[in-house]
Formats: sequence, C-alpha cells, structure tokens
Amino acid sequence: MKELDFRINNTIEKLSDPESYNVVCHEHRLGEPLPSIVKLNKIVDLIREILFPGYFGNTSLRPETTKHYMGVYVDELNELLNEEILAGMCFECDNEKNNRVKKNTTKAKKAAIEFIEYLPEIRRKLVSDVKATYVGDPAARNFGEVIFCYPSIRAITNYRVAHRLLELGVPLIPRFISEMAHGETGIDIHPKAKIGESFTIDHGTGVVVGSTSIIGNNVKIYQGVTLGAKSFPTDIDGNPIKGIPRHPIVEDNVVIYAGATILGRITIGANSIIGGNVWITRDIEKNSRVVQTKPNDRFFSDGAGI
Amino acid sequence: MKELDFRINNTIEKLSDPESYNVVCHEHRLGEPLPSIVKLNKIVDLIREILFPGYFGNTSLRPETTKHYMGVYVDELNELLNEEILAGMCFECDNEKNNRVKKNTTKAKKAAIEFIEYLPEIRRKLVSDVKATYVGDPAARNFGEVIFCYPSIRAITNYRVAHRLLELGVPLIPRFISEMAHGETGIDIHPKAKIGESFTIDHGTGVVVGSTSIIGNNVKIYQGVTLGAKSFPTDIDGNPIKGIPRHPIVEDNVVIYAGATILGRITIGANSIIGGNVWITRDIEKNSRVVQTKPNDRFFSDGAGI
Amino acid sequence: MKELDFRINNTIEKLSDPESYNVVCHEHRLGEPLPSIVKLNKIVDLIREILFPGYFGNTSLRPETTKHYMGVYVDELNELLNEEILAGMCFECDNEKNNRVKKNTTKAKKAAIEFIEYLPEIRRKLVSDVKATYVGDPAARNFGEVIFCYPSIRAITNYRVAHRLLELGVPLIPRFISEMAHGETGIDIHPKAKIGESFTIDHGTGVVVGSTSIIGNNVKIYQGVTLGAKSFPTDIDGNPIKGIPRHPIVEDNVVIYAGATILGRITIGANSIIGGNVWITRDIEKNSRVVQTKPNDRFFSDGAGI
Amino acid sequence: MKELDFRINNTIEKLSDPESYNVVCHEHRLGEPLPSIVKLNKIVDLIREILFPGYFGNTSLRPETTKHYMGVYVDELNELLNEEILAGMCFECDNEKNNRVKKNTTKAKKAAIEFIEYLPEIRRKLVSDVKATYVGDPAARNFGEVIFCYPSIRAITNYRVAHRLLELGVPLIPRFISEMAHGETGIDIHPKAKIGESFTIDHGTGVVVGSTSIIGNNVKIYQGVTLGAKSFPTDIDGNPIKGIPRHPIVEDNVVIYAGATILGRITIGANSIIGGNVWITRDIEKNSRVVQTKPNDRFFSDGAGI
Amino acid sequence: MKELDFRINNTIEKLSDPESYNVVCHEHRLGEPLPSIVKLNKIVDLIREILFPGYFGNTSLRPETTKHYMGVYVDELNELLNEEILAGMCFECDNEKNNRVKKNTTKAKKAAIEFIEYLPEIRRKLVSDVKATYVGDPAARNFGEVIFCYPSIRAITNYRVAHRLLELGVPLIPRFISEMAHGETGIDIHPKAKIGESFTIDHGTGVVVGSTSIIGNNVKIYQGVTLGAKSFPTDIDGNPIKGIPRHPIVEDNVVIYAGATILGRITIGANSIIGGNVWITRDIEKNSRVVQTKPNDRFFSDGAGI
Amino acid sequence: MKELDFRINNTIEKLSDPESYNVVCHEHRLGEPLPSIVKLNKIVDLIREILFPGYFGNTSLRPETTKHYMGVYVDELNELLNEEILAGMCFECDNEKNNRVKKNTTKAKKAAIEFIEYLPEIRRKLVSDVKATYVGDPAARNFGEVIFCYPSIRAITNYRVAHRLLELGVPLIPRFISEMAHGETGIDIHPKAKIGESFTIDHGTGVVVGSTSIIGNNVKIYQGVTLGAKSFPTDIDGNPIKGIPRHPIVEDNVVIYAGATILGRITIGANSIIGGNVWITRDIEKNSRVVQTKPNDRFFSDGAGI
Repeated sequence: MKELDFRINNTIEKLSDPESYNVVCHEHRLGEPLPSIVKLNKIVDLIREILFPGYFGNTSLRPETTKHYMGVYVDELNELLNEEILAGMCFECDNEKNNRVKKNTTKAKKAAIEFIEYLPEIRRKLVSDVKATYVGDPAARNFGEVIFCYPSIRAITNYRVAHRLLELGVPLIPRFISEMAHGETGIDIHPKAKIGESFTIDHGTGVVVGSTSIIGNNVKIYQGVTLGAKSFPTDIDGNPIKGIPRHPIVEDNVVIYAGATILGRITIGANSIIGGNVWITRDIEKNSRVVQTKPNDRFFSDGAGI
Repeated sequence: MKELDFRINNTIEKLSDPESYNVVCHEHRLGEPLPSIVKLNKIVDLIREILFPGYFGNTSLRPETTKHYMGVYVDELNELLNEEILAGMCFECDNEKNNRVKKNTTKAKKAAIEFIEYLPEIRRKLVSDVKATYVGDPAARNFGEVIFCYPSIRAITNYRVAHRLLELGVPLIPRFISEMAHGETGIDIHPKAKIGESFTIDHGTGVVVGSTSIIGNNVKIYQGVTLGAKSFPTDIDGNPIKGIPRHPIVEDNVVIYAGATILGRITIGANSIIGGNVWITRDIEKNSRVVQTKPNDRFFSDGAGI
Repeated sequence: MKELDFRINNTIEKLSDPESYNVVCHEHRLGEPLPSIVKLNKIVDLIREILFPGYFGNTSLRPETTKHYMGVYVDELNELLNEEILAGMCFECDNEKNNRVKKNTTKAKKAAIEFIEYLPEIRRKLVSDVKATYVGDPAARNFGEVIFCYPSIRAITNYRVAHRLLELGVPLIPRFISEMAHGETGIDIHPKAKIGESFTIDHGTGVVVGSTSIIGNNVKIYQGVTLGAKSFPTDIDGNPIKGIPRHPIVEDNVVIYAGATILGRITIGANSIIGGNVWITRDIEKNSRVVQTKPNDRFFSDGAGI
Repeated sequence: MKELDFRINNTIEKLSDPESYNVVCHEHRLGEPLPSIVKLNKIVDLIREILFPGYFGNTSLRPETTKHYMGVYVDELNELLNEEILAGMCFECDNEKNNRVKKNTTKAKKAAIEFIEYLPEIRRKLVSDVKATYVGDPAARNFGEVIFCYPSIRAITNYRVAHRLLELGVPLIPRFISEMAHGETGIDIHPKAKIGESFTIDHGTGVVVGSTSIIGNNVKIYQGVTLGAKSFPTDIDGNPIKGIPRHPIVEDNVVIYAGATILGRITIGANSIIGGNVWITRDIEKNSRVVQTKPNDRFFSDGAGI
Repeated sequence: MKELDFRINNTIEKLSDPESYNVVCHEHRLGEPLPSIVKLNKIVDLIREILFPGYFGNTSLRPETTKHYMGVYVDELNELLNEEILAGMCFECDNEKNNRVKKNTTKAKKAAIEFIEYLPEIRRKLVSDVKATYVGDPAARNFGEVIFCYPSIRAITNYRVAHRLLELGVPLIPRFISEMAHGETGIDIHPKAKIGESFTIDHGTGVVVGSTSIIGNNVKIYQGVTLGAKSFPTDIDGNPIKGIPRHPIVEDNVVIYAGATILGRITIGANSIIGGNVWITRDIEKNSRVVQTKPNDRFFSDGAGI
Repeated sequence: MKELDFRINNTIEKLSDPESYNVVCHEHRLGEPLPSIVKLNKIVDLIREILFPGYFGNTSLRPETTKHYMGVYVDELNELLNEEILAGMCFECDNEKNNRVKKNTTKAKKAAIEFIEYLPEIRRKLVSDVKATYVGDPAARNFGEVIFCYPSIRAITNYRVAHRLLELGVPLIPRFISEMAHGETGIDIHPKAKIGESFTIDHGTGVVVGSTSIIGNNVKIYQGVTLGAKSFPTDIDGNPIKGIPRHPIVEDNVVIYAGATILGRITIGANSIIGGNVWITRDIEKNSRVVQTKPNDRFFSDGAGI
C-alpha cells in the first residue's frame, strides 16, 4: 500500500504542475457560470419544442393550450440563454480584469432577447426545409416522420440556431451546438456557413460544410459530401490567416450526390448536378452535370485479394 | 424590464399563431400515448438483453436463472411494445375521429405478440451475423468483444428488429429504431430493406442501405458504402412516386469496400468484389472484381497547395 | 388472454433454450464485476477532467485548488480502473476455474497504477495535438474552443487512453473506450494503432485507422479517410490469421484529404500530400502529391437523371 | 453452487404459491394504469406550485409570466390527475369485468376537472392558514418562511387536496396523498376529516386527526395532539362497523397544547384551551381551560433510577 | 482572493488533522464494498415487491407471470444482500487484518441464502398483520389500501426483515433498515425486539419499541407509545452494560392507547387495555384496564395564558 | 372538449388573478438565484462528509487521501454556500430596489467563509455528542453505528450547522436546514436555540426545542419531549412580539424522559431527572426528580370500551 500511495502521489504532483497543464487548463472565477453541457442540451430541446410544437416535449398540445406552453418555454429559454451566453462570454475572455461579469450580463441579455425574436423566422425556414425533405424523399411517409425521425432536420435546426447566435456575437456556444448535432448525426455544418431555404440533406453521415461556405435555396446534398477548403494562406509566423473565404459557393437548386468532395472558394452554378465520389476544385458552370470519369473499369481474376 | 417583456410577449404571439406552426405541429389527444424516446430506448435495450443474454443487463445470468429473466424481460417488452406501437399508430392517423385508440389497441396487441414470437428467429439470424463478423475480422478477439463492442452488431440488431416491426404494419416506430442506430453508429439501414444472413459491416460509419435494397447471404460491406437510388420518377405534381424499387440488389457472398457508391435498381452478381471509392450505376456480373480506374496518378511538385 | 399467455410462454421457452443462445450468452459468477458502461463513461470523463483541468468538470478550478482536485480525481479514477479492468479480465476468461478473481485482482491493481503513472505523458502528447489542431484550422478561435468543442480531440484522447491500457495488457476495455469515441464522433481509431505526436483530424466523421497502422508525428487527416487492410491471409480452416501487419505506415508530416482510402501494409512517405477520394494500395515516395486522375470529366445534358 | 440454486429455487416455488400470496397480491391488467408514487408526488408538487406561485418550482415568476405558468401547470395537472384517478379507480375494483377502464375513464375525467375548478378555493383557505400561522408564531419571520419551511403548511395543503378528491369520490389516491404528508411531517390528518379555515399546527410531529373529526375555524393544535376514537361498535362478525362518527368535534378558536389525547365523538366547546398531555373522553364546555391534574408531584431522592 | 484562499486552506488543514477526526472517521480499504444507502433501499423495495406482489413494482403481475418475477426478484435480492451484508461485516471489523473480505464473503453468502429461505415465513406473518390491521380499523376500506398506504405495514415489514437479519448475525444493516422505516413513518422498532403475529400499529408516529421488548400475538398499539427502559446498570467504568433485558413484556391481545409510556422489564398481562398518556413502571395483571388518574381537572378563568 | 377547455381556462384566469395569490406568491428577478432544495441537501451532505469522513460519501478514504478530499469538499461547499446564502438573502428582501444582488454577494461570501472556518469547532462538538450517545445507549454497538444509523446525530448535525449560519446572519436557509432534519427524524430543533456539548436525544420522534431554549452540557432527552412556550405577549395589533425569551433553560446533566412537556421561560436545575409524560410550567430545583402523580389508577371491568 505504501508504494502504491507513493506512486499515486508522485503522479498527482506531476499532474498538478502548472507547467504541464498551462495550455490546456481553464481557470474559473467564483460566481461566473461555466458553460453547462446539460443546459445547452436543454436549450436545444426547448427550441425544438418551440419550433415543432407537440413533437418533442411530454406535453398535451392542443390549440387551446399552445400559447401557455409557448409562453413558458420562451420564458425558460430566455433564462437559460442568459446564463449560457454569459458563460460563453466569460469562457473566452481569459485575460480581462474585473467587471467582466457585469458588462457581459448586459450583452448576454441583449443577445438572448434578439435571438428569441428571431425564432419565428427560424421556424419559417425550417418549415421550408421539412417540406423540401418530404417532397424529395420517396421513403418519407409524412411530415411527422420527417420531423420526428430524420437526422437532417435535427442537424439543420441546430445549424440555424447556432448561426443566429453567431451573428449576434455569441462566442463558443454556437460551435458547441453545431458539434452536438455533428455527434448525433454525423453532419458537420459550421455555424458561420450561410445556407438558404428549402435545404435538404439525405442520410447525411459524413457531410461537412465549412465555415465560409455559401449555399443557395433548394439545395440538396447527400451523405459524405464535403464543402471544404483546399489550402489557406499563412501569416509570416506560419499560422493560418483566419476568416478568409476559402469554401465553395453552391447556387440555387444544386444537387450533390454521396461522397463528392468540393474544395476551395469555387462556385457550383445553379441547377447543376454533381455525381457521387467526385473531387472538384474549380468552378462549375450553371446547369452542369458532373460525374466520375468513365464510370469504372471492370476485370475478372481469381487472385486472392484486390 | 417593461420593454423586454413586451418583446418576449410579442414573440410568443407570433410563435402561437397557427399559421406559423400548422405544418410542423403535432396535436395530441388526452389519453393517447405519445411515442416516448425513453421507452423506445428501453425497448431496444430489453431486446438486446433478450437476444444476447448476460451482455447488456445488470444481471447475474446463470443457466439456472435464464428462464426467469427471459420471462420477465419478455413480459416487460410486451407491455412497452403495446404502448409504443399504439403511440405510433395514433401518431400517424391525424385525421381520424374517435375510437381510434380502441381500434388501434387491438391492432397493437396483435403486432406486439407477433413480434415477440419472431424473436427466436431474430436471434438465430444475429448469431449468424456475429459468427461472420468474428471470422471476417482479424482484429476480433472473441465473440464477446464482437457483441459487446462492435457498432455493426448494434446497427444490424436494430435493423432486424425494425424490419420485423415494419413487416407487421407498425408505423413510425421502425424508422425511429433505425435512426437510433444511425445516430449511435453512423450506419443508416432503412427498415424496409431486405437483408440475408451472415451479414457483416466493418467500421460502418457512413454506410447507407436504401429502403428497397435487397442483400443476399454472407455479404460484407465496409464504411462509407452507399446502396442508393439514382433518380426516381415523379407524379404529375412533381412529387416522387413512393415505393418503386430503386435501390441495388446485392447477391450472396459479395464484398464491397470502403466508400463505394452503388446507385439504382441494379444487381451486383454473387461472389463479386467491389473496390473502394467506386461509383457504380449498372449491373455487375457474378464473380466480378471492380476497382477505380488506373489506381492513381502521382506527381511531384513544390507548389503550396494541391 | 389464455392464448396470448400461451404464445408468450412458448416464446420464452424457445428463448431459454441453451441451444439457441449458447454462442451469444455471457455467463456471470456471483461476486465478479461486470463491465459497466456507466462506469466506463465515468472513467473517460474523469480522465478528461484530469488532463484538461477546468474544462469538463463542474469545478471551480483555481491554482490554489488544482492539487486537491487532481488528488481526488486520481483517487476515484484508481478505484474505478481497478474495478473495470478486473471486470474486463473476468469477461474474457470464460473457461478458467476458481481463483480467477483473486489472481486478476492483483493484475488489475498493477495495470491501474501503471496507467495512472502514464497520465502526465498522455497529457503532454495531447497538448501537442491541441496546439497542432489550433494552428492548422483557420476556423479555430482559441485553444479553449478546440478542447471544449472539437470531436477530434475527444477521439484522440480516447485513443491515447485506450492504447495505453492495451499496452498494459488490459482486455476488452480499450476497445470499448475506442468505440465510445467512434459512436460520439464517427472517428474509428483501433486502440492497437501507433500514433505519434501533434496528430490532427479535421471534421473526422468516417475516419478509420486500422489496428496495425503506424502514424508518425505531425500528421493531419480529414474526414472519411481510411487506413485499412487490403486482404489478409487465412489459416487452413479459412479463419483470418490474427495480428499480422496489414495496415499502412504513414510517415511524419503527411496530410491526407477527405475520403482517401489507403489499404495494406504500404508506406506513405514523409511530407506527402494525399488528395481526397483517392484509392491507394502501393507505397508512396516521400514528398509526393497524389490526386485523383484527371480531376473530373464534365458534360452537359438535359437528361432526367445522371 | 448446486445446493445454493436448489435452495433458491425452492424458495421461489414457495413464494410463487398462490396460497401464500393470495391476500396480499394485486393483480394488474394490461393497459390499465397502476398508481404511480412518482406521479402522485409530481401531482402534489404541481399543486403546491400552482397554489404558492414562485415558491417551489424552478421558475422565474413575474406578473407578466404568471398566467403562462398557471396555464401549463394546470394542463399538466389535468393530465396527471386523469391518469392517477383512473389508476385509483381500477385499483379498487378487483372483481369487475371488462369495460371498467372505459367507464372509469369518464368518471376520472369528471373528477379531475371538478378538482381543478376547486383549486382557487383551496388557495383561499390556505392563505387563511398561512396568515394564521404567521400571526400565531413569534418565531416566524415572514410569510415566505412559513410557506417555504413549515411542515404544517405542507401537511394542511395535502389534507385540503386529499379532502377534495375524497369528496369527489376518488378512491385510494386521497389516502395516499395524506400519508405522503404524514411521512414527511409526522402529521397524520385523515382526508375525510372536516377542517375549517385559519387552521394552524405548531411543530406538528405526532398529530393525529381521525377520519370523522370536525374542526372549526381558527383552531390551533400543537405537536402530539390526538383527535381519536375511543372504541367502536363491531358487527355480528366482530368487524368494526365502518363510517360511524367516532372522533371529536372541535369548535372555533380552540387551542390544544402538545400531547393532548382527545378521544370519541365529544365536543370541545368554542374558545377553549386544552393543556398539554391531558386525556379527554367527554365533552368540554365553551370557553374552558383544561390542564393536567395538580401539575406535578416533585420529590427528591438519591436513588439511581426513577 | 488571497486572504480567502488562505483562510480556506487553513481550515482544510484543521479538518485534515487526524486528531480532529480520529473518532468519527471510517477508513476504507480498496476493493471492500461500503454500505450503500441506495442499495439498502433497493433491497427493501425488492423485498416488499416479493412479499406483496403487484403493489410496489412497476410490473404487470398476473398468475401466469408471478413465478418469473419472483425468480428475478429473488435472484437480484440475493446478489444485493451478498454485497450489503459483506459491506456491513467489513464496516464493523475495523481492527482485523487481511483476509477479512474472503472470510466474510462466505459468511455473507450463508446469511443471504438463509434470509431468503425465511421470506415465505415473513410473508405469512405479514399477512396476519395486514388482516389484523384491516379488521381493527374502521377507516380501512380494503386490504389493498392497508398494504399500499399504511405506514404501520411499512414499519412492521422493515422490522420483520431487520429482525431476521439480526438473528442471522448480520451487523449494522438491520439497524439501518429499522431506521429507514423510522425516518419514513416515525415508528422506531429496534430490530432485536421480539414481536408476535397479527401485530398492529395505528397512526404510529412516535412509537418506540426498545431492543429487549417482547410482544405477544394480536397486540395493538397507537401513536406515541413507548416500550422503553427505566434505567440500566453500568459497569465499573460507568458504561452501560449491554444486552441486559430492560424493556417490557407485552402479552397477547393487549391494546395500548396513544402516548402511553411503559418502562422497564415489566409485564403487561394478556388481554389488558392501557389508556393513553399513562406512565407505567410496574407489572400489570392480565385483563387489566389502566387509565390516567381522575380524567382531568377543569377550571374556568379569564387569564391570558395557561 | 369545448366545455372542458372552457372550465380549465376559467380556472386558470382565477388562479392568475393577483388578488388571489398576492400573499402567497414569491416574485423572482432574472439572474437572482432561488433557494434550491436540491442544493441545500447537497450542502448538508457535503458537511456531513467533511465532519464524519468516510461515512457518507462514496469515497475511498485513507489517511493518504483525506486532505485531498477535504480540499475538494470544502471548495465545493464554499461555492454552494455562496449561492444558497445569496439566494436566502434575496428571498427575504422583497421590497429593495436594485443592487441588492451585488451588495448581498459580498455579504454571502463573508458568511460562507466564516461558516467554513467554524467547521472544526462543529466537528469537535459533534464528537462529544457521538461519544455521549454511545456511552448512554446500551443498544449502541460502536461509534460507527451511532454515526451511520442514529437519527439524533443527523438532527444535531443539522442543528449545529443551522445555528452557526443563523449566528452569521443568514436568513431562511438555517430554518430550512432544521426542517430537513425535522422531516427526516421527527426531531424539531429551532436553529436559534442554544445547546451545549455532549447532547443526546434517544429515539427522538416528536422532540421539540423552541427558539429561545437554552440547554447546558451533557443533557439527554427522549422522544416526544417538548421545550415549548406557554403563552406570549402580543403587541397592540394583536401580533405576537417576536424574540422574547419564552422557552425553558435546561441546565447541565439533566435527563428528560419521553413525552414530557416543559413550557415557558423556566429553569430545570442541573442534574435533575424529569419523568415521562409530565407537564411542567414552573422552575425545577437542581437535583430534582419529577414524575407523574400517583403512578396510575388501575381497575377491572368488562365494559366494551375505556
């Protein structure tokens, strides 16, 4: 036992050495809220219940009761947003002195109410996404199945929420909300991307939409599609220069099939169809159809492997 | 405070406007069960414990106690299935009047017992899947590791359960059970697909098996493989015609490597091997081997990007 | 009711028939711990809190309190590791008689303390991974966002933990810890793979790193990349021979873009760049750049499908 | 192990013998709700939040939001009451055939709405109780402390709720709600008792108010007071005849001090004061003061015990 | 902040000084179970469900399923008892060296199975208690209400369980189980007391039954009754000599009304009735009736207090 | 349905009428913490674990780890105390404007640290209570049983904690902590009472110690003992004058047996013994023994009742 305790204590010493954890430690001041994964999940659940009433809560929604529920959910959401937005703000300002809670409290309150005011617009856009998904999928039986079961709707909901929060200057929280959907659905949409209405993703696992992507209306993408960056300029220290447009622009009515990789600040012209598994790094004209070169070779052999 | 409350109330009004939520709202009648995500998870957990006794429950399974546990689990399962199948039935029949709970209660009871009677057959098929997975993976140490750790077994279990429920006419619930596995494993198998015995999926993230796919016995597919639809006919309103066969038929003993995209109602002949990242839209004869054209170009350069 | 009970009991009989569950049943002896998914999650959470203090716990971390928290977390971790390592050991030794708990208790205690002693080294490596991720991603705002939000850091953390446990001879648990990250992030790194420092994965969904892969320092891979096996020799019974090197070696400073499939015991030479969606089954020299043959055909048409 | 299993199975046989459990077993039909302790607690919590807004929920109650919260709480309460009242009705009708759920569903719905309509009256009475408690206790600092901390308020709330449910013909549930308060506070008020306004209980542990008691307005009782039955007539089988008045009538403005035992259908006249630890089995005139005979003997001794 | 941290650390030093916590600290060895309040509650819940099938579990109990449920509950109970009995044994043997877990494991296993074998007998006795309670209480509507709602049944159940465990030599756990009922019901029965069949307690808050009490068959006691010790001899160090009979013997068919205090190793003869609030320290002959001297004085006054 | 909704809405209107809830409503401002019952429970659990290390936490306490655990528990306690003390302060100052959170934050921080500094003294006193309990109870087997099982220790712990918080000027919280113990144990000690060392309570249900009571060292009281007020002066509005001494003074080494009621600002002289069920309203000299007058009448009869 003695030796065991010695070894454990020795390790504790090493792990407590600031040299070892400096870069990867987050200090916290008494009284400041920490971002709470539980509460961020609660926020997203509340928003989904507000946007799609009756689908996700344990509620008995009827026309007579809708307004009561909306009132309570919005009130609870406001309180949670205030707290988590403030937590996100404190999380990022490691070097500031004093007052930061006070100053940020006002900013958080402002961002929370402005976000809430935008909820009807988010719902309007999501209605267009749900309709487009239903129309575009022969396997979809009704709107209810799309809303209740489809991971794409979950991912797009989180994106539209996170995007608005980012526009309002909220740090950290938008990215986390995007990554929640990423973990649940395999769909990775950066909250900074701009996406139009009637957007659909089929199956979705492996989809990546980079942070400076711009997507028009009525676009449909399949699983495994990447809208990525090709390379990016670095500053004189070799660090990437942040914020430069480096992801594709996808115009209205484009369809991109499974596994296509589209890189760089290029434009996929309106009404184009991009076949699966292609690799595109230059502009595509409007109304194009792009597929893999000569579909495939085929050969016969009796060898043991490929 | 006054202004804040005004703005919040204003938003609540908008969110409570039926115009705005009509399409995406699910009304609920007092006394009807709502599909419960918690209970659907419990159903799948119970089924896994029944099929693979001793692996997933907190139980002390011994030959002497197996039957007691089976008895209790099946009884609990029956009760939960009755409730959730009924919930699924009510969920979909938005326009019916009265009696629907009563009528559906009988239908739900019938579907539940027929599902339960099929459990031994599901176990028999899963045993074949586990054996095939162990034999086919040099990294697998024993059956236990395959059952306890492999996401493919989880995804195939959910598929075989959901498929049977769909055959019994249960709405909504099968799709949800499939999507649960999709979220957990990145493997997206539509419950309507038909899949033979000794089916294996390696790694699995990004696999898509479309709703009218037919897969034979002893088939193995790797991560990122799509069995998808190429295009689909629309009716005169432009809506896709539902239920037309549009996904591939994969015959016995086929292996499909990572990232292959196979689209349309084509047939991959028995014993064929499909290489990774290919894009196939036409029939492949039996015993074929298909790989990407000319493996790759290679070139040297000192340019900054690709 | 009579008939229902008859049918249920009949099914219970079938499900309790040892013939039917022999292969897929895990027997359990009174007093032996079963691997607990809840506790394995707790272990990973504790390790993350130890490695990245202040990010994931509900703690008020300050320089004055760090050592207390490290002390308690390490102590709790030690106890949980003892229990779960022992559970993993008992899980795999189905055929042994008696004493196995006693013998394994000592082995588990030894493995737990040796793992704990290695934690500072794991942190050191993860610091290099976090720094490389931040530097390599123009969208990353600061280290905090990388640690708190990026799925790649979660996946690499689980890998580094699982890899060490595997080196210490712990069965089952390492694979499960890897699969936890796989489920959460879509990144599937086998715990047996060897990976150097400053390793980064961007987006990550669909990444597969096979069990005999060797990855150097400062390597970056994108979503959908496979480091897999091409084929593998079988023994005279047709079973795969376990443990033969069959996955790629990736040398220092290599970048592999989205969707590339690299198969077999080949070597990707240092400083090479592998383009997206390629299929590679032979060695690549140092400093190479490899992209898909003739980027893409393009053609225009007004046909209804692709 | 063999012997252990034999002994366990032997015991299971005995415990499963209907002879042994006939009297103490509750059969249950598929589809009928069972009374749920969790839901009964939730019901009481909701009612407390409705009656004392802002004290017990996690809500941000403001004048602007009160109505939303009331709306939602009442709606949730209605649903829970429907279910639990129905469960209570099914629980008691062991011998009925069929239809009982259907018939009881209508009765439950009626009772639930009538109970809800009575809530404002319950609140009115509780306001009188809170005021009387504050005025009568020099240690009480404000209404808030009384509502938030005093067990008497909890017990009286449960009583007033249970009493109303009993008046509406609901079986089982009222008694259970009374016993919940009994367990939490040591105050045992039978839901059938009749109690006026401005009722206060100080400390309260050990108070018993029997089922046919009648208590006027502005009565105060202390801990350990019993309003009990002296004896009760039995029928020819020796079973007690149910429902005969056998507990005291306590008129307005009476105070009863700690530990007094008052038995039988007697009347304590208005404005009387009953001293502690007395034993009363006959009528007490109005305006009386009753105390223990000659306060106490006192004697001195040096013996070791009493 | 500096000063705050200094003061906190200073306090931590004091609280970590073994001098200060020596007497009130419980050391724990790695691998030994600690008594778990959660598991002890689970044990009592399981026992209640076994004894009163269908009342307390969430089960759908029917004659066809009873045996399955009994089998599973008994099996789970056996495992929990093994663990908690062992924990109780380790808890008390602070000074022993090594092996104690091993030695106690065998003892715990033996006690657990012997307890389980006694369950049918406990049920038989409780059936007599339930019947006596129903017959003796005009307010009881049926057996179901008695079992589901009456705190006395809960307290007597815990007593009968704890008493048997104590007889089997289990330390600590019996007392804890008694105190659980004490906390829930206000009824404090020492597990060492001996109590016959058809035992009833009405209301019950404040009842105390001391450790060497002996109670016959068909005894009924009301709230606030004490069967206590008068005084007890001390050894030469002034410590009380443990285990000497010092509580009352209550013979068959005795009724003791509310608040009676009965002290010392005296005998209350069969068929006697003891009135409320009396204080008895000497033997009472069979068939006696004892009440408070001259019921009460009564006087009128207009003084302000008593 | 229409009528049902009408009746429900009508009730909601009534319940939302400020007239009806004015007195019993607690308004809440955004950003102010509400007292949280969950957190107050957590505070008491933490304090118990700090005071009695190893008994109540799930920890592996060893001499080598004690300090780490103390450090973490005290740190967590500090944070929780800050929040709940602040919540208590805001709860009571209904009429203040602005700034109150800011001003109270400083006061809360001061009270929290001063409370924490007093913990070693609380432990010292509780050690004396535990020792006295063990010595005074022949049924107690060891200190461990006393600490782990005895409700009196729980009640006295809560009292000593609440008393200190009250001394530090904390509102509401102390009373709530006292009532927590009251609910769990039936022992009701007002936090304002003054109690010396080596205090013991046997069984305890029904004990009441009023707010201005003063209890010396080495006092022992049994279940059902009341130290209460006889009557209290009212001001000209008829409201009781708060804070006047009105409860007994009990000097050192007094024993008070079960059910004694002692009322008013009287003094029970040192070394006195008070028998059970007595009613005392005047001073008792030192070294007295007081018992009920003429133990009891006894008579024989064959009447049906008492």
